[in-house]
Amino acid sequence: MGIVLGDNRYGKAEVRLVRVDRDGELHRLTDLTVSVALSGDLDAVHLSGDNAHVPGGPAPHSFVRTGDATRTATIGYDGGAVEVVSGLTGLTVLNSTGSEFWGFAKDRYTTLPETTDRILATAVDARWRHADDGGDWAGSYAAVRRLLLEAFADTYSYSLQQTLYAMGERVLAGRPEVAEIRLALPNKHHFAVDLAPFGVTGDGVYHAADRPYGLIEGTIARDDRPAATGLAW
Amino acid sequence: MGIVLGDNRYGKAEVRLVRVDRDGELHRLTDLTVSVALSGDLDAVHLSGDNAHVPGGPAPHSFVRTGDATRTATIGYDGGAVEVVSGLTGLTVLNSTGSEFWGFAKDRYTTLPETTDRILATAVDARWRHADDGGDWAGSYAAVRRLLLEAFADTYSYSLQQTLYAMGERVLAGRPEVAEIRLALPNKHHFAVDLAPFGVTGDGVYHAADRPYGLIEGTIARDDRPAATGLAW
Amino acid sequence: MGIVLGDNRYGKAEVRLVRVDRDGELHRLTDLTVSVALSGDLDAVHLSGDNAHVPGGPAPHSFVRTGDATRTATIGYDGGAVEVVSGLTGLTVLNSTGSEFWGFAKDRYTTLPETTDRILATAVDARWRHADDGGDWAGSYAAVRRLLLEAFADTYSYSLQQTLYAMGERVLAGRPEVAEIRLALPNKHHFAVDLAPFGVTGDGVYHAADRPYGLIEGTIARDDRPAATGLAW
Amino acid sequence: MGIVLGDNRYGKAEVRLVRVDRDGELHRLTDLTVSVALSGDLDAVHLSGDNAHVPGGPAPHSFVRTGDATRTATIGYDGGAVEVVSGLTGLTVLNSTGSEFWGFAKDRYTTLPETTDRILATAVDARWRHADDGGDWAGSYAAVRRLLLEAFADTYSYSLQQTLYAMGERVLAGRPEVAEIRLALPNKHHFAVDLAPFGVTGDGVYHAADRPYGLIEGTIARDDRPAATGLAW
Repeated sequence: MGIVLGDNRYGKAEVRLVRVDRDGELHRLTDLTVSVALSGDLDAVHLSGDNAHVPGGPAPHSFVRTGDATRTATIGYDGGAVEVVSGLTGLTVLNSTGSEFWGFAKDRYTTLPETTDRILATAVDARWRHADDGGDWAGSYAAVRRLLLEAFADTYSYSLQQTLYAMGERVLAGRPEVAEIRLALPNKHHFAVDLAPFGVTGDGVYHAADRPYGLIEGTIARDDRPAATGLAW
Repeated sequence: MGIVLGDNRYGKAEVRLVRVDRDGELHRLTDLTVSVALSGDLDAVHLSGDNAHVPGGPAPHSFVRTGDATRTATIGYDGGAVEVVSGLTGLTVLNSTGSEFWGFAKDRYTTLPETTDRILATAVDARWRHADDGGDWAGSYAAVRRLLLEAFADTYSYSLQQTLYAMGERVLAGRPEVAEIRLALPNKHHFAVDLAPFGVTGDGVYHAADRPYGLIEGTIARDDRPAATGLAW
Repeated sequence: MGIVLGDNRYGKAEVRLVRVDRDGELHRLTDLTVSVALSGDLDAVHLSGDNAHVPGGPAPHSFVRTGDATRTATIGYDGGAVEVVSGLTGLTVLNSTGSEFWGFAKDRYTTLPETTDRILATAVDARWRHADDGGDWAGSYAAVRRLLLEAFADTYSYSLQQTLYAMGERVLAGRPEVAEIRLALPNKHHFAVDLAPFGVTGDGVYHAADRPYGLIEGTIARDDRPAATGLAW
Repeated sequence: MGIVLGDNRYGKAEVRLVRVDRDGELHRLTDLTVSVALSGDLDAVHLSGDNAHVPGGPAPHSFVRTGDATRTATIGYDGGAVEVVSGLTGLTVLNSTGSEFWGFAKDRYTTLPETTDRILATAVDARWRHADDGGDWAGSYAAVRRLLLEAFADTYSYSLQQTLYAMGERVLAGRPEVAEIRLALPNKHHFAVDLAPFGVTGDGVYHAADRPYGLIEGTIARDDRPAATGLAW
């Protein structure tokens, strides 16, 4: 039995653009919200990286927003088979260090600077398919949630893709009742505010941008999982 | 009878900031949404400016988002007096030219560049108090809405405050049944995207930012208006 | 070439329930939002019914909320094939007559009374796949939107499923560039308010309920359509 | 020094109504969201009632939704005086017993049945003005939040108004730095679902309605409080 990376993609969501075409006195307005998703040979970015495991659960630089997530469940039934998909949505987490992003492909359109210390923040949206339709649902949910948080906290991250894979792998390694897991992680950008022009020394102040945000999606699965029936997954 | 500027203020709303205080391994996180409002001797910014009236109603560079506004009404009654306040909210409008912003006070914290041609966009939130409790409500509402749109469209603007005053003045000048009007106008910033680094010539592409936004609020009133009862206003 | 009913389902969405389990002094609270969807042999309910076509476009009892819909587009590209899916979301429409609902299966759990004159209201969410990747996108969108509105307005409805099918069929019959269309129609319930206990005669007042709402989903397709690539659909 | 009830009102918010006027073939549609607020001599309903204090903090039938509230602060400054108003919003709480509602005025329009055991649920929106501009803000906030929760949990309630007053009184009695407090409490109705028609015995299942909801607002103040400057309150 092995753990494999399934379908995955990444992109930038909700870029808000307005275009004005000026034809003399007459202007024409186009109001756009643009999202882009790319998929391809992305195994390396998910699987590589030096994952420095910090012992002892959530690290002192890892935060979970109070309010928790909303727990979800989808059950499919066709008179015979039952398919159970558990999930959570809106689990907002942030690492205030332990994240780098550099070495990416560059061309003449690249404006993003490289960084060796950035804030990594996301709102976890996860759905996992159960191997069968029995079990301790409450206990399983609590355990999966804990594993997701621990993996987010103690993965030293070179990309959000890598963190996504580490989260899914942790769940599959720790919970035999989970056959596969899908994660969608918005990359909630935090831009360091340069206070030097104002004569203020020190750093640690960030602008939390609403839109656009990166959006990383992927499935992590056992290679010997039972086929999905399509009822709920 | 004259038209006067009443209470007014302006500021910046919903600046999203995150502060990280790092004490070695232990980080402390503060997640802030900050709004600031200032009031003072602001008559000049509301009243001055060269308002080049463009004849012929909504100009070819003025836009109203389809979807219109939601109409509102508040009625106060204490057994005797009746006070009626009409209003609308969410009337999104944009001028793609005819707006400048320069000559503002500068200090070492100022980063905003001056501009002689910017996009002016807002979502009009307006409430107007009626002089008495009778009348053709539907007709009055339609007329006030039209006057607000016309004044927004044909005011050459040196500040959103000036536009706000022009909108209120237009309503009071045209509709004797309105005693005073309160306007709250978010300044929905549109930042020109510099396409030159990408080898693309031309302009007309803007990033529509969600937050923060400026917020301009003001009351325009007749100097001989009946006192508000406080029931609805 | 024929027009066929593809995948479809219906159900009730967002039933808000709270359950209190009382064990003496200790209570346990479960807060649930439950949605149910059923699929099966539902051709008849989509295809049957007397569709009395009212000539002359939108009828005098059919309403579209100003504010229009948001237009959407999804484009898939894998280096070779291009797949284009157009759509709209949030197109709120209401027929104030011309809708009946009766003759449905009943058992001891059925509480819904039959009706021969109800309000039919929905917010159309539609996505349609184009047969190829060229064409007049703006003109095609406007035409599809008009056909959806016309079919909603002039279909005498015995179920929202029937209306859904009529809307999809109208688009496919009128627009050769559309290969198939998916519709999701929430049944926005309007309950007649009985004013008799208050000594008020007459009717015409309805309570517009937020949740739960019915949710009808279905695909209408040409039987000789090109296969979807899966890039965008 | 005494504690007094200040401005207060109650009503029903966001009643969603649709009215259809039928003139033969031509129908006219009016879509309304109606809120009503009443004020008057309401001291008794806030002050009376048998408040059976349950010792020992939050009772086993009192619940706080995880997710907590958002903390708010408003500071006014005019060059001299500083006025500080603290607050919280969205603190969702529910008592699954210990709430009655009966003995209210009835007329021919009354349809509400009396009850001696109902669910009491609200989302606390509170703002409190500080007596001066110094102090331990974080400690004060935590203490006020705790007192609000305790008063909600251990007040045996004959009306939400009575609970509102008890919450404000508890804060003023326990925190000398608070001059007055304003509370707005939506009455989030939970309707018991009658399962008998379905042959199911037992109770404990409730329909949580979205709209309309009651809305109770009131101010509790010290009678010797410093006057508000109007800068922030």
